[in-house]
Amino acid sequence: MLKNFWYALEFADKVGREPRRATCLGQEFVLYRTEAGTPICLSDLCVHRGGSLSMGTLNGDCIACPYHGWQYDSDGACVKIPANASERKIPRKARVDAYPAVERHGMVWAFLGDLPEDERPPIPDIPQWGDPAFRAVQTEMVIDANYERTFENVVDASHTPFVHGTAFGNPAKPEIPDFRIRSDDWSAEADIQLSPPPPKGLWGWLSRNKPRPEYVTVTNGWYLPNVVKLHVRLPIGDLILYDFNIPLSQDRTLVKILGFRNFFTGAWADRDARKRIEKILLQDRPVVEAQRPELLPFDLSDELHVRSDGLQVAYRRRRAQLIKDGWWVGGDDVVTGGAPQRSATIIASPARRDNPELASAWVHKARNPGDPR
Amino acid sequence: MLKNFWYALEFADKVGREPRRATCLGQEFVLYRTEAGTPICLSDLCVHRGGSLSMGTLNGDCIACPYHGWQYDSDGACVKIPANASERKIPRKARVDAYPAVERHGMVWAFLGDLPEDERPPIPDIPQWGDPAFRAVQTEMVIDANYERTFENVVDASHTPFVHGTAFGNPAKPEIPDFRIRSDDWSAEADIQLSPPPPKGLWGWLSRNKPRPEYVTVTNGWYLPNVVKLHVRLPIGDLILYDFNIPLSQDRTLVKILGFRNFFTGAWADRDARKRIEKILLQDRPVVEAQRPELLPFDLSDELHVRSDGLQVAYRRRRAQLIKDGWWVGGDDVVTGGAPQRSATIIASPARRDNPELASAWVHKARNPGDPR
Amino acid sequence: MLKNFWYALEFADKVGREPRRATCLGQEFVLYRTEAGTPICLSDLCVHRGGSLSMGTLNGDCIACPYHGWQYDSDGACVKIPANASERKIPRKARVDAYPAVERHGMVWAFLGDLPEDERPPIPDIPQWGDPAFRAVQTEMVIDANYERTFENVVDASHTPFVHGTAFGNPAKPEIPDFRIRSDDWSAEADIQLSPPPPKGLWGWLSRNKPRPEYVTVTNGWYLPNVVKLHVRLPIGDLILYDFNIPLSQDRTLVKILGFRNFFTGAWADRDARKRIEKILLQDRPVVEAQRPELLPFDLSDELHVRSDGLQVAYRRRRAQLIKDGWWVGGDDVVTGGAPQRSATIIASPARRDNPELASAWVHKARNPGDPR
Repeated sequence: MLKNFWYALEFADKVGREPRRATCLGQEFVLYRTEAGTPICLSDLCVHRGGSLSMGTLNGDCIACPYHGWQYDSDGACVKIPANASERKIPRKARVDAYPAVERHGMVWAFLGDLPEDERPPIPDIPQWGDPAFRAVQTEMVIDANYERTFENVVDASHTPFVHGTAFGNPAKPEIPDFRIRSDDWSAEADIQLSPPPPKGLWGWLSRNKPRPEYVTVTNGWYLPNVVKLHVRLPIGDLILYDFNIPLSQDRTLVKILGFRNFFTGAWADRDARKRIEKILLQDRPVVEAQRPELLPFDLSDELHVRSDGLQVAYRRRRAQLIKDGWWVGGDDVVTGGAPQRSATIIASPARRDNPELASAWVHKARNPGDPR
Repeated sequence: MLKNFWYALEFADKVGREPRRATCLGQEFVLYRTEAGTPICLSDLCVHRGGSLSMGTLNGDCIACPYHGWQYDSDGACVKIPANASERKIPRKARVDAYPAVERHGMVWAFLGDLPEDERPPIPDIPQWGDPAFRAVQTEMVIDANYERTFENVVDASHTPFVHGTAFGNPAKPEIPDFRIRSDDWSAEADIQLSPPPPKGLWGWLSRNKPRPEYVTVTNGWYLPNVVKLHVRLPIGDLILYDFNIPLSQDRTLVKILGFRNFFTGAWADRDARKRIEKILLQDRPVVEAQRPELLPFDLSDELHVRSDGLQVAYRRRRAQLIKDGWWVGGDDVVTGGAPQRSATIIASPARRDNPELASAWVHKARNPGDPR
Repeated sequence: MLKNFWYALEFADKVGREPRRATCLGQEFVLYRTEAGTPICLSDLCVHRGGSLSMGTLNGDCIACPYHGWQYDSDGACVKIPANASERKIPRKARVDAYPAVERHGMVWAFLGDLPEDERPPIPDIPQWGDPAFRAVQTEMVIDANYERTFENVVDASHTPFVHGTAFGNPAKPEIPDFRIRSDDWSAEADIQLSPPPPKGLWGWLSRNKPRPEYVTVTNGWYLPNVVKLHVRLPIGDLILYDFNIPLSQDRTLVKILGFRNFFTGAWADRDARKRIEKILLQDRPVVEAQRPELLPFDLSDELHVRSDGLQVAYRRRRAQLIKDGWWVGGDDVVTGGAPQRSATIIASPARRDNPELASAWVHKARNPGDPR
């Protein structure tokens, strides 16, 4: 799992004035909005007795721990310890890590890492968000598989005819013509020719008089750390999925999807659009959950790659560099899941690096740059 | 988890002439009474094939393993191997560890360790037991949390207004005035001023004409290894809880409670008293189960303490000494829970130390003084 | 768990033209038959993306992965990669391990190891199979216990009076007269005198006029790696059970049983015969699942043995030799169960040894000869 990235943790309309827990990279966070509507992301772990802040309540822009009522402001500094006499000073160490958070493209994103602002990788663009030509639906599903397995699965065009033969792949024409990859440090994309099956159901009926092309171009792309774009050009219009693969733990993934279409853009067609997306997820799920080893190998030679795996190989190569750079978190130092822990480590937030006078003010130790093996 | 203590393993009236399994410190024991009524506590693990004695049957004062019928007397010595010809001698190694057991204050206690009798820490006093002014109820609940977390939770007065605001805390007045701790090697106690909410339900109705004080004194105390006393002075009388936090495994606790009251001492009020105690447990449970890290840290600096945490800090300091003395059991060498084991280790009973001629007579190895890290 | 043996993985009539998953030694296999009816056993793990072949489909004698449709022939060589242009060559590394498989005695057996044909231990004989004097029933059950625990349990005559006192043991006469063991490198057998209880139910009623002997001879035998024969001589005829203890993981066993009888050989009595066998299994299950430690110890001195345990002690001695020879697989290097893995290791098949030019052609590493500790 990679730190130092912006992670889309929740649909923006799900984050409000009720604290909401988000789990990512094997750590828990609390999300909420200030009275002015700004999204906030704090470590969910009270430094006093490890209470879960997301089970607490908001008091103005502060959040109060459910256990002893300690209140933290939106920068993570504790501003009230109710059991103390009011004249007693709040200890400097009474603070939790606060992670930069923004709302963009219909999602709340948090920067999980300690890089200074100008060194942070970008948030991927989602130009369809807010474009009146497009209509969006949301859907989500928990998959009992590693997030890099579910991520690579969506990047992968060549499984379509076999796993989605009844939905949008064509088992009679599984060959993938060679494609060219456009990539930069944070993403890779390709236009891939797929043979489409005849559309079915509502969409099929409504497009029954349109000619069906021999090939359609599907644009497949990944955006680090965990976003996949899938752009399918149907006879009746464009279907563009943004797929967020959120690592709950090493082997559990929360997949959130924003699905855009520029046809049947009325609310009446939302249910059908959502059902189609969920059908695809349900076809992938048993196959991906059965993959072994459970975790995406580190060595390229641990699996066998062919030409059509180019986007995944590009991901594994880029990942290997980032692991060398110390961006990997994982192995034993996870807070949630697995064996019970005796001490809590967390992902360092920017304040740890930016604010030297706080150097000794942190109760929870930062997770080590992971030795991934 | 600490060895060398008396552990209250079961309510006395639950231990009789049917073998009963008790789990504690990650090890299993069988409890039963002799024909004369004396409580017996043996390691539950037959040395022949690891059968669970508590699934067996009593024969006089002996217990027979359910698997091959080996019979052990109340000192743990095997006295019969049914498959053997009757003239064949019982091997010296055919013995399980027997732990000193007594009935006191309505509980069956077993000494889980090998200290000689005069070096054993005391069983805490429960003066309300047998006092005709008091009426007792029993209750119990399994909590998916570490026993030191549930133990500290009951010791802790300052969570009351937040977690029990609807039961007996007062969220409007959460401040805890400084208190003085009375302690010795095995216990610590303090009188703490809490602001009470108005009592509700049956007790509220029956005390509706009594004046309500601004503060009530709650006496909170811990008794090693795992007992907490909570003495609440209500307008209508005294409610005194003894709370036994039995470690089933590292992260599972069986909480047993003896609850005494000196008001409404008729059986008719038992159900209401039990329900009130269970309500408190059910309020604590989700908060304690969500605490992270799951296990109580060893280093004081892994959490942040304030004045009102004095009793818990005293516990952690005393625990640190006992760990240095080698009283800790834990880590990998647990018999129950977690990964399947290839060999069984058990907590040494006094006979191993008292009886040098038995030195080579033990099949199961004693668990090492735990390196707790 | 021991490699280099023939394992009975499935009842022969359950293996056909639908791929079927079998789990053994903590690894997954796919079983199917060629069009000519020959049973095939391949590693279930596609080398491309770790897809589970047993979720795929047959195409002639080949099996296609459900994920990307790669087709493997019955020797494990990949013969088709659908995403590739048809003129592109199949890489040499596109192959999975194929394990020798045969149908014999009503079971499909696979050789899980890499020994050359002439060094392989034999498949045990089951002379009742195909003998018209005998009628067979099948039954199976999953037991949450280590396979060596369930295996030794069936070898063990002395538990019969205690665990099966209501079925075929006699609790009033539990003594086991000394017996002589006949053994070779791969098996051990003994004729053991047991006192029988009066038969009940249908069999009892039908034999109500036959005299009841004081002792009956039970022939108990084990055949490496995991087969137990239990031959019970009832007043009305012979009941002969072959019991296959298949290790799904370290602590989960699939017990398959072939049960032969030479009385009431009509189909009408099958249901009763199957019920009697299942009753025995259900009596054993709670006792065996409660055994501690969960895994059969490596050191003889970790449990206490008596004369009647001779067959089990012979097994443990023979096992110790095979562990020294490097036939043990286990410990951390299991593919299924337990913690999620980052790389897949598998049991080497004979081709790895027989075919030096394939030395560099294997994607999955072979599991190490286990250091069992």
